[in-house]
Order: sequence, then C-alpha cells, then structure tokens
Amino acid sequence: MSQAIRVAVAGASGRMGREVVKLVLTDPDLELAAAIARSAGPVDAGRMVGLEECGIYVTADLGQALAETRPDVLVDFTTPQAAMPNTELAIQYGVRPVMGTTGFTPEQIAELDKQCREKGIGGLIAPNFSIGAILMMRFAAQAAKYFPHVEIIEAHGDQKLDAPSGTSIKTAELIAQNRQELKQGNPNEHEILEGARGGYYNGFRIHSVRLPGVFAQQEVMFGAFGQSLKIRHDSYERAGYMPGVKVAVQKVMETTGMVYGFEHFLD
Amino acid sequence: MSQAIRVAVAGASGRMGREVVKLVLTDPDLELAAAIARSAGPVDAGRMVGLEECGIYVTADLGQALAETRPDVLVDFTTPQAAMPNTELAIQYGVRPVMGTTGFTPEQIAELDKQCREKGIGGLIAPNFSIGAILMMRFAAQAAKYFPHVEIIEAHGDQKLDAPSGTSIKTAELIAQNRQELKQGNPNEHEILEGARGGYYNGFRIHSVRLPGVFAQQEVMFGAFGQSLKIRHDSYERAGYMPGVKVAVQKVMETTGMVYGFEHFLD
Amino acid sequence: MSQAIRVAVAGASGRMGREVVKLVLTDPDLELAAAIARSAGPVDAGRMVGLEECGIYVTADLGQALAETRPDVLVDFTTPQAAMPNTELAIQYGVRPVMGTTGFTPEQIAELDKQCREKGIGGLIAPNFSIGAILMMRFAAQAAKYFPHVEIIEAHGDQKLDAPSGTSIKTAELIAQNRQELKQGNPNEHEILEGARGGYYNGFRIHSVRLPGVFAQQEVMFGAFGQSLKIRHDSYERAGYMPGVKVAVQKVMETTGMVYGFEHFLD
Amino acid sequence: MSQAIRVAVAGASGRMGREVVKLVLTDPDLELAAAIARSAGPVDAGRMVGLEECGIYVTADLGQALAETRPDVLVDFTTPQAAMPNTELAIQYGVRPVMGTTGFTPEQIAELDKQCREKGIGGLIAPNFSIGAILMMRFAAQAAKYFPHVEIIEAHGDQKLDAPSGTSIKTAELIAQNRQELKQGNPNEHEILEGARGGYYNGFRIHSVRLPGVFAQQEVMFGAFGQSLKIRHDSYERAGYMPGVKVAVQKVMETTGMVYGFEHFLD
Repeated sequence: MSQAIRVAVAGASGRMGREVVKLVLTDPDLELAAAIARSAGPVDAGRMVGLEECGIYVTADLGQALAETRPDVLVDFTTPQAAMPNTELAIQYGVRPVMGTTGFTPEQIAELDKQCREKGIGGLIAPNFSIGAILMMRFAAQAAKYFPHVEIIEAHGDQKLDAPSGTSIKTAELIAQNRQELKQGNPNEHEILEGARGGYYNGFRIHSVRLPGVFAQQEVMFGAFGQSLKIRHDSYERAGYMPGVKVAVQKVMETTGMVYGFEHFLD
Repeated sequence: MSQAIRVAVAGASGRMGREVVKLVLTDPDLELAAAIARSAGPVDAGRMVGLEECGIYVTADLGQALAETRPDVLVDFTTPQAAMPNTELAIQYGVRPVMGTTGFTPEQIAELDKQCREKGIGGLIAPNFSIGAILMMRFAAQAAKYFPHVEIIEAHGDQKLDAPSGTSIKTAELIAQNRQELKQGNPNEHEILEGARGGYYNGFRIHSVRLPGVFAQQEVMFGAFGQSLKIRHDSYERAGYMPGVKVAVQKVMETTGMVYGFEHFLD
Repeated sequence: MSQAIRVAVAGASGRMGREVVKLVLTDPDLELAAAIARSAGPVDAGRMVGLEECGIYVTADLGQALAETRPDVLVDFTTPQAAMPNTELAIQYGVRPVMGTTGFTPEQIAELDKQCREKGIGGLIAPNFSIGAILMMRFAAQAAKYFPHVEIIEAHGDQKLDAPSGTSIKTAELIAQNRQELKQGNPNEHEILEGARGGYYNGFRIHSVRLPGVFAQQEVMFGAFGQSLKIRHDSYERAGYMPGVKVAVQKVMETTGMVYGFEHFLD
Repeated sequence: MSQAIRVAVAGASGRMGREVVKLVLTDPDLELAAAIARSAGPVDAGRMVGLEECGIYVTADLGQALAETRPDVLVDFTTPQAAMPNTELAIQYGVRPVMGTTGFTPEQIAELDKQCREKGIGGLIAPNFSIGAILMMRFAAQAAKYFPHVEIIEAHGDQKLDAPSGTSIKTAELIAQNRQELKQGNPNEHEILEGARGGYYNGFRIHSVRLPGVFAQQEVMFGAFGQSLKIRHDSYERAGYMPGVKVAVQKVMETTGMVYGFEHFLD
C-alpha cells in the first residue's frame, strides 16, 4: 500500500480551509502535517473543525511550519495578497503548492512555473475545484459549436456581492471561443423593465438569480428549432469541492511545473 | 344529450383563430356557425385550417355573419382596434362574446358589462386562456405569503419583441399583492455586466430568456433558508390554449354580465 | 416586547434535535429550558451543537427535566416508541407538545386531544415541518382538479432505505382525493426494463431517484395537451425545517387541543 | 454558388416524411426530385404538406422514381420491412441513401457498406437525427468517467408503447461503457410500491414518465457529494430533427461507404 500524502493547510480557519482540514484528517490517503491560520491561539486542528483532537496545533507562521514539518503538499485557501508569497515560500521548501486562491497575473504564473521546474516539483493554481462545474463548462463549450443560441442562468445566495458569478463569466468566455459570432434576439427587442434581458456578453445574455437557500447553481441553455439542450450544475455546499481538492493533491505529486486550471488534471 | 354550442370565430385566419376553428370543427360539443377574416377569398373554413371541407366559407363582414347565422358565442382573436366594436356588435345580436383580444380600458369593460346585463347574456374578456398559466399565477401568489424571497425567470422565442412577458408582469403584480415588502439581494450588490440581475419590480427581479425553439415557459422560484420552491409552466404550442377556450365557451353560456379574466371561470 | 418562549428539546442529540437546539439558542424569541437525550454525559447543550457554552447540561430524564424547568413547549424528535409516553408526560406537566415523531394511531391522537383540552393547552403532531413541502402538496392537490394526468418524481440521498418517500405518498394521496379517476398511459404499454414506469398508485406513477449529494427533492409534473405544469420543492438541509418548527412553537401557544399536521398552522 | 442537392423522399406521407418534404421544398440548398408514398393518388407533394403546389406528384414506385429523376440523395423514413430493399435500390442507382429507418442487422450494414464503396458513394443509417440528443449522449458518457452515480429520467407522450425509450437505453449503454462498475443505492433498499426505483440497467436506474403534452425529453442526472450535474434534452416537435437531416444530406455527399450513427457526422 502506498504511503499517505502529507499535507499542510494554509487558511485553515477559513470556510474552505476548515473543509480541507476535515478532508485531510478523515481520508486515509492523506495525513495532516500542519495547519496554518492567522491569530490562532493554541487550538487543536481537529477540534477547530468539529472532529476529535488530532494532536496538531494550528500555527501562525507558514515558513516555520513548512520548515519544521516538511510536508509533501501545501493546500492554500488564503487571500489574494498572501497568494504569491505563500506559493514562493512553498516552492522554496520543495513543497508542492495547491493554490485555491485567485489573483495571480500571467507573469507571476510563468515565474512560479520556472521556480517549480527548477525544484523539479509540480504545482496547481485553480480558481475552481469542482469537477462538476468544470465538466459543465467543457460541455457548454462543445455544444456552442453546434448551437449558437445560448443563455446562461446562474443562481447564488442572496448576499453575494457580484453579478454575474465568476463561473458564469468563465463559461461565457469558453462559449464565445467556440460559437459562431451572432447577436441573439430580435433586433427591435424592447425592455419594458430595464435589465430584464440580462447582462450582455458577446451577443448573448447572462442572468443572475440571488435567493436565500441557494449555494451555487448554473444552467447553460441552448435553443434551436424544435429543441433545447440544458447543462446544469448545482453545488450544495463547500464540502462538494473536496473530492476535487483530493484529486489535485494526488495529481500534483506526479507532475512537474505549475499548472493553471484544475481542468488540466481531468483527462 | 345536450345540443352543440354554435360558435362564430372572428380573426379566423390568424394563428390563434385557426386553432379555434380546428377546435370547433373537431369537438362534438361545438359547432361552427361562421368564420370571419379580413380579405378572405371564397375559402372553405375547414380547408383553411388543413381539415376536410366543412361547407362554411370564410366571410369578411362580422355584422352580416352574426345576423345571418345567429350563433350562441363569438370567439374573437382579432386586434385591439377591432376589440371594442366587435364586442358591442356581438352583444347587440345577443351573441355571447369570448374576447381573446387585449386593449380594453376599465371603463369599456364596465360599459360592456352593462350591455351584457341588459341583454341577459354572459361574456368574457381574457388575455390568457391557459389553465396551467393561471394556476401557476395563483400558486405563486399563495406562496408569496410564506416566502417573500422570489424571482421570476421566463423564456420565449427569440423573436419576441417585449421583455419581460405580459404573463410575468401579471404574475409579479399578484406576488406583490401578497408578499411582505422587501428589497431583496445584498444592498451593496454590484453588476459587473449591466442588467445581469434582471428587471426590478417592487423589490424583486424578473429575468427574460429569449431562445429559438421555446414557445412560452415561466418559472417562479422562491428561496428560503435550506429550501426552494419552484412553480413552472411550459406552453409548447398555441393548441395548448384550446381546452381553456372550450371551457370559456361553455361557461359563458351559464353566466350573466362581462367577466374579466379567465381565472374567474376556474373555481 | 413579548417574553421569549421557553422550550425543552427531547432527542436533543439526534440530527433533527441538534438543529432544534441551535434554533432555540440563537433565536431571540426562544429560550432553551432543557435538553434531553439518552445516555448523555455531563455535556453542555451549546457545546454539543457546535455553539458557545449555554450553561444548560443535557439530561436523560424527560419527566424530571419538565418538572424542574416547567417549559412552555416541548419539541420532541425521538422515536416512535417514545412518542406516546413523552406526549402524555408533557401534557401532564402542562407543557405543550410539538411532536416531530411519527407512529401515532388515530385513537391515540384523539386521546391526546382530550388530554390537551382538559389541561387547556395546545399541541401539534407533525410528520413534516417544511413550509415549502406543505405548499407543494397543497398546490398539487389543487392542480389535480384541472389536470388529471400527473406523475411524481422524487429524489433523495442514495442511502435512503424506502422508496417512494413518505412525502411523495402523502402527495399522491392528496392528488387522488382531488383527481378524476383515470388510469394513465397507453393500455398496451410495455416495460422493456421492469419497473421503468415507476410505482403505480391509483392510476398514476411515482418515481424514486436515489443519488449521493441530494438531500430531498420532489417534482409533481402535470401534463396536458400542449402544456405542462410543474411544482417542485428542494430541501437542501435539515436546518431548512427550522423556520417551520419556530412557527409551530409559536402557534401551539395560541391553540387548544391537539392538531395533526403542520398544514393546519398555515392559513 | 454551389448547386442545390437533389433529394428524393421515401415515406413522404408519414409524419417524419412530411417534415422532410417541407424541409427540402423550403431550403434553398436542397431541391425536391421525387416524393414516394404508398397508395398515393395524384397529389402534389407541396399541397400534401400544406405548402404551395410544387409541380411534383407523389408516386408509389421507388425504383421507377429513382430511375426517372436520378436524385443525389434518398431520404427514407419508411418501415423496417422496406429498409433493406430500399437501401439496395438506391445504391444500385448511385443514389446516396440517408435511412431514418431502424431494423438493420450488423451483417446487412456491412453488406451495404460494401455496395456503397463499389459505387464510390456515401450512405447513412441513423436511428436519431437530433443533434441535441447526440450531444446529450456524448456528454453523459464523458461525465460518467468522473461521476459513477447516475440515473436517467425520460419523458414522452402518454400513448408511447415502450418504456424506457430507445434513446434512454442507448444513453445507458454509453454510460455503462465509461462508468466504473457499481451497484447504486442502499443494498437494503425496499420498494413500498413495486417499480418505484425504476428499471435496473447495469447498476443504475432508468425512469420513464408518460404524460400528454410531452414530445420527448430526457435528463441524465449525476450525483456526488455536495453536487449534482444534469444534462437535459427536450424535443418539442418532429421539425426539430430537420436541421440534422439537412446536415446528413450534405455530409453524405462528401463521404464514401455506409456510416452507422449520425454522431459520426458531428466532429
């Protein structure tokens, strides 16, 4: 049997970080090496996430934690500000970074790829770890070749600030790359209520629903004469991203260089 | 067995009128008395709608047709301009009007009610003959008492001119009458693409999808902590309104005065 | 301002009971009087559900807890075996029972109603506290008067034992009471795969989907010429039932006698 | 500009055949060479499908029609009995067959492929011309690699004889080829109503809904921890298959040999 992969978790007290700690503590293929969070008192990482004591205290200093525990992989859900320095720190210690944090420039990614290759290790930067969401985007892009008429309807919780969602914009980009250029709808279309027809993107529309109880849903709807094709992904909770995080942790052990986008880990 | 109800159809060559002619010719409870359409040559009404010859020629003069054939009911799908004079003409001949045409003012409806009562006959003015759509609106109004967070997503063919649809606005009115006042969404909500959050109506949002292949669909989605309730109506073709037209023709025989809204014929 | 309602929770360590404890501890209109659970060590009720210490220890003896704390209401999510004795115990102490437990016979309910009336207090026995599910059932029953062709598709987690769900059977009963008798489908229908057409109930069909990730979903689909009407309820988590539990606790303070079915608390 | 492709239509008076005649008469890229139907009186093909007279009479003898008009392509929606002889007749005259008829054995297809190659022409045998349905099947097969938990829910009109539908069985086959072997559901699952859990296929379930108003719908639902992915195709009318028939007519001009399955014409 193969040995468990030793994982450090940065941003361990955040909403995603806690789920990652739970994953690592309960999955026999993974082992918790360290849990890092700002301003943490002497708290046991297991206790912090509602599990049994695990004997590993949450610490505040990432560099020290990596130096002392030498994990195989760092899973990082922190802030855009910390993303670049944390990634460089990990690579420096030969720890493979799996970054769920956004905010890297293409230049930074290229630089990190170089650093990874020099150390002979793999890395991943991924705004989305949801296998289902990635398949939805992939299928939508494929369908757009055959069905140029499309609209996106996404729904999130009512306290979300931005509309449309990042995932819907990413989906729209992929559709636009595969779809013949076309401005949909009646050219004399008239909005009785301003905004009823949704946000305009490259000839088609995106609609953002915001309601309590919804976590994250998206439907891509294609219409053609006599038929419609719908691709829909519903996320019910953060824990749904964890199978993707596990795949990422495993795949990053077998690659060299920095990969951008979790979809490259799905064949 | 009861005798068939004798029906005249005005606007017989239009898209809805043709369906009504088909209904009347094929339903044993109904009998075609006359078919009226502008600039009609000597065309058999059955042939015009793709059925066998029925022996009744389409004529152009409504008054003459009513005088000569004395039907029980006039079903009228013409234009807003013709709506008021056609209705008055029907009542004058003691023919019960079933008007699928829009554009009556409240004063006109009151006047027509008076005329119906003087003749001792019933009448109906109905923008919508879809039993399913009416139930959808009724249920949405009821649910709004318990679930104040709601959005409407409606979809129609991509050549429709107006957004949102008349049915969605009518639904929104009914919801607003039953819902506690509330401005939904995050107060600091930000539209990255203008219009993404849809059309604003009384604190909630309406989204209009326009795609080829769609005839008429509407979903009313209520969201609350941990749950969502959806009421959805899909119309696939004009023929789907005909069961409602038949109910209207039958009910108008048993009422007195002008009724506004087909929902009043559903108990 | 009105005083908080004092609530005892029986079955406090179960999945529903824990949610009720959370509700009572976090809602300013409610106050935790006691938490009862079998074989509980000296555990603080707040800690048990992942909240701050609240100073109330979980105890094992319901009678003693009621005698010592004299709450206004008992919310009970225990077992069918404990349901009847727990209810009688509560009434004896003048505590209004809100029973989320199933397994009462009509005779037992009549007897408990008599006991409640003697004490001049209200009570509730409810297999379902979901406002959305109750509205779904109500709307389905209403729609069945107009649309006799109907099928139910329900989905639950893949480890659920019974199919179809209790809610779908309850919905089917309500539909059957309102629907004209009719055996749907082609009389010569043929199942290539046995069971494909679902479970047969009174002339129509119920389909049970079982997949991981799903908590509880149900769609009632009505079909008629050219249209379909769908009523759909999705529950995402147990916490979604808590608004209903709160309404029940409040309403039970204002009634006399034992009510069966939460729907009677929705006007 | 390229010349119109000359098309003969066999089974021209059937439900699919009429739609093909309409397509060919109204699409400028296509030209009607002949329309063949059994026991046809001297009927103009245009008139038969509700269009203007086109000058081409429906004839009964396929061989004679092909000999006299020498079309580029034969589109055939007849019966399983006629399928093999009609195809051989077409190839004999150097006419490319596009067969929408089912019932060929693998040996017959191999034989027809040989005949096509000898004549240096292409041909197609396709049980399904719906681009959307083919994409749905393709995406379902791809998703099954990542999400082994799946159920299929298909809906058709209430007079359909067989359940489940041919498309759902074809989809299930493709899923099974890509999915890790797994018997879904609780091993102790219990059907209170027999058949509630649907038809069993290779470890997963297919559910068949039959309701009036529905033409053809199918949803493939994948479930995993915290998420679900749905791929759904709705067909509203036979006319929705015509864009696929046109693609087939065009592609068959550019291929050699007999192709089985329209999906091979989509890249």
